[in-house]
Amino acid sequence: MGYERAKEQPLTFVLVHGSFADVRFWNGVAGMLRKMGHKVFVPEYPGHGSDPNTNVTHGMISRAVADFILARQLRDIILVGHSFGGSVVQKTAELVPDRIKRLVFMNGFVIGEGQSVVDQFPPQVQQLFEQLRQLSPDDTIMLPFPVFRDAFVNLADLQLARQLYSEVRPEPAKPSFEKLDLKAFYKLNIPRSYLYLTDDNLLPQGEGYGWHPHMSGRLGLFRLIRSDGDHMTYFRTQPALLAQKLVEASRD
Amino acid sequence: MGYERAKEQPLTFVLVHGSFADVRFWNGVAGMLRKMGHKVFVPEYPGHGSDPNTNVTHGMISRAVADFILARQLRDIILVGHSFGGSVVQKTAELVPDRIKRLVFMNGFVIGEGQSVVDQFPPQVQQLFEQLRQLSPDDTIMLPFPVFRDAFVNLADLQLARQLYSEVRPEPAKPSFEKLDLKAFYKLNIPRSYLYLTDDNLLPQGEGYGWHPHMSGRLGLFRLIRSDGDHMTYFRTQPALLAQKLVEASRD
Amino acid sequence: MGYERAKEQPLTFVLVHGSFADVRFWNGVAGMLRKMGHKVFVPEYPGHGSDPNTNVTHGMISRAVADFILARQLRDIILVGHSFGGSVVQKTAELVPDRIKRLVFMNGFVIGEGQSVVDQFPPQVQQLFEQLRQLSPDDTIMLPFPVFRDAFVNLADLQLARQLYSEVRPEPAKPSFEKLDLKAFYKLNIPRSYLYLTDDNLLPQGEGYGWHPHMSGRLGLFRLIRSDGDHMTYFRTQPALLAQKLVEASRD
Repeated sequence: MGYERAKEQPLTFVLVHGSFADVRFWNGVAGMLRKMGHKVFVPEYPGHGSDPNTNVTHGMISRAVADFILARQLRDIILVGHSFGGSVVQKTAELVPDRIKRLVFMNGFVIGEGQSVVDQFPPQVQQLFEQLRQLSPDDTIMLPFPVFRDAFVNLADLQLARQLYSEVRPEPAKPSFEKLDLKAFYKLNIPRSYLYLTDDNLLPQGEGYGWHPHMSGRLGLFRLIRSDGDHMTYFRTQPALLAQKLVEASRD
Repeated sequence: MGYERAKEQPLTFVLVHGSFADVRFWNGVAGMLRKMGHKVFVPEYPGHGSDPNTNVTHGMISRAVADFILARQLRDIILVGHSFGGSVVQKTAELVPDRIKRLVFMNGFVIGEGQSVVDQFPPQVQQLFEQLRQLSPDDTIMLPFPVFRDAFVNLADLQLARQLYSEVRPEPAKPSFEKLDLKAFYKLNIPRSYLYLTDDNLLPQGEGYGWHPHMSGRLGLFRLIRSDGDHMTYFRTQPALLAQKLVEASRD
Repeated sequence: MGYERAKEQPLTFVLVHGSFADVRFWNGVAGMLRKMGHKVFVPEYPGHGSDPNTNVTHGMISRAVADFILARQLRDIILVGHSFGGSVVQKTAELVPDRIKRLVFMNGFVIGEGQSVVDQFPPQVQQLFEQLRQLSPDDTIMLPFPVFRDAFVNLADLQLARQLYSEVRPEPAKPSFEKLDLKAFYKLNIPRSYLYLTDDNLLPQGEGYGWHPHMSGRLGLFRLIRSDGDHMTYFRTQPALLAQKLVEASRD
């Protein structure tokens, strides 16, 4: 039924990846969405992909995504943010609200006014990030494998976990530590959805933390769609499932 | 195995619908339960169905359900409440406790002593309900389509959402705003179950709100049965699944 | 894929059962794990199985499990605790940390420093346990059938619930009431996983109680694996599913 509807209502997706990733993160899901008849755009942003600069700000990133949308004259878009990309979607929505039909957070950060991405983690994890940042020569954070394996790809087997880890690049630290002014975001009336992957334990689930219902609850009225999946594995192994769920989160 | 047991142990269901609905809400599930060999009764109550009166009270509604049970001399019933119907089940149980074998709340409100149905919503939603009530000519609440589409039928596609919305009638406001005396309910020892539809985001999930575990937790010892499903869609599209889960929640 | 990997990486499991059970509790799951190519050991501990003594302590139990591991010269083990067995795993890990490759809690108690197993229950349930203890001639707790049926085996039909209840033996009370010194446990760096059976309502789910995320959250970094299942039923009816999930929780 989703496939039939897609023919009737093709959607225009802009997919924003998260930390420790680049545009290739969306390859599987984007391919499935295109097969279903949708248009899909995947912007790269500063400090990622082929950009060697690690001295980037959160504002540079959201500005780059907004410019991508404007340069291609995209309208009525479904703006999707995964993980750190959620916070990018929040700030991009402030810049080009009239281009966006619906915001979709896919285990994406929904930052509270005046907070940072790192603020969403428990104190011990914040300390770990701070230490990793200090240890790096270029103000980046690189995940130790045991953290990646158990917290990011808990559903993967070891071989796949190693493969996915080999693709991880150090993440510029600054944007995740910046306190974000989101007053304009919290006045927007753009429809929004939360696609919640229920096996994702990167953030503690519940009791003051977590993707859903803790951060999703900041969205006010939103459409909830749930799916199996941890933080990263199913993007590689179950792209058809995630694309289908993304359409359910995105359709009118 | 459920089907085999139903032959051995036919149950007597009384199904109580919620707000914005009438007896037709249960058509699909009731039909499936009857096919499985169970007896099913679906009472209409004041202010709903063919009753044009909107000046009804919560007491009138629970009294009507109790009278329905007494008039038909029903005994050993499984009394099921969906949504607002949960609060009706609570008060009906006070009136005819000896007729009830088990209470089943199906994403049904379990109201705390001295609270109202509306009290179970976050402050912003309470304000919305208050405004909608003020706007109506006859003290009813009518849901705007965007609220219905994202909060009541998030799993539906647009066509089905519109179809279900076309069946929604304005809901008499007063019973949902009444503070309920439930001291007698909380002394009852009738076995109870909570059938939790996990995709239902009408109430925030967790952190001080929600069907389960927040309101279900007021039941003390209860049997938990979980199922996929949002607040209303699967009653139309997956009646066999919901009937099966209802039997699992209801059997001895 | 799990089966293929098992051939490559056979694991050594030590499975620790919980209260109201004995080594036979693991028969189904252990059989499946062995078929998959793993080594499986299931220690009995004092006060359970053929041991008629009910005057046992938590220390006697964890010591017995540690001695079992030492006597068989087991190394690189996956130490799995279900229910009360979780607290045993915590203390056993303090005794033989160098023998353990990974700890797996399977709806197992993760006790906070200085707390008891009984402390993890809501006050009313604590009172019930206290009363049941007082009523017993030998300081044991025997579950009333209605509690067992709705809180331990909610997914079972009545026939299976009765069968499983017939196998329940009174549980020595003392170990569950003891306050545990877990300071050493909380300094261990052994990798750990939580296998969460999502239909288990023995402990309230969320809001200050529960297997996950409340108690699991005490583990710091851990691998989360989720599965359908209540507290006990699927050990009898779905051993292949639970064995597969256990491998996902246990593999490197």
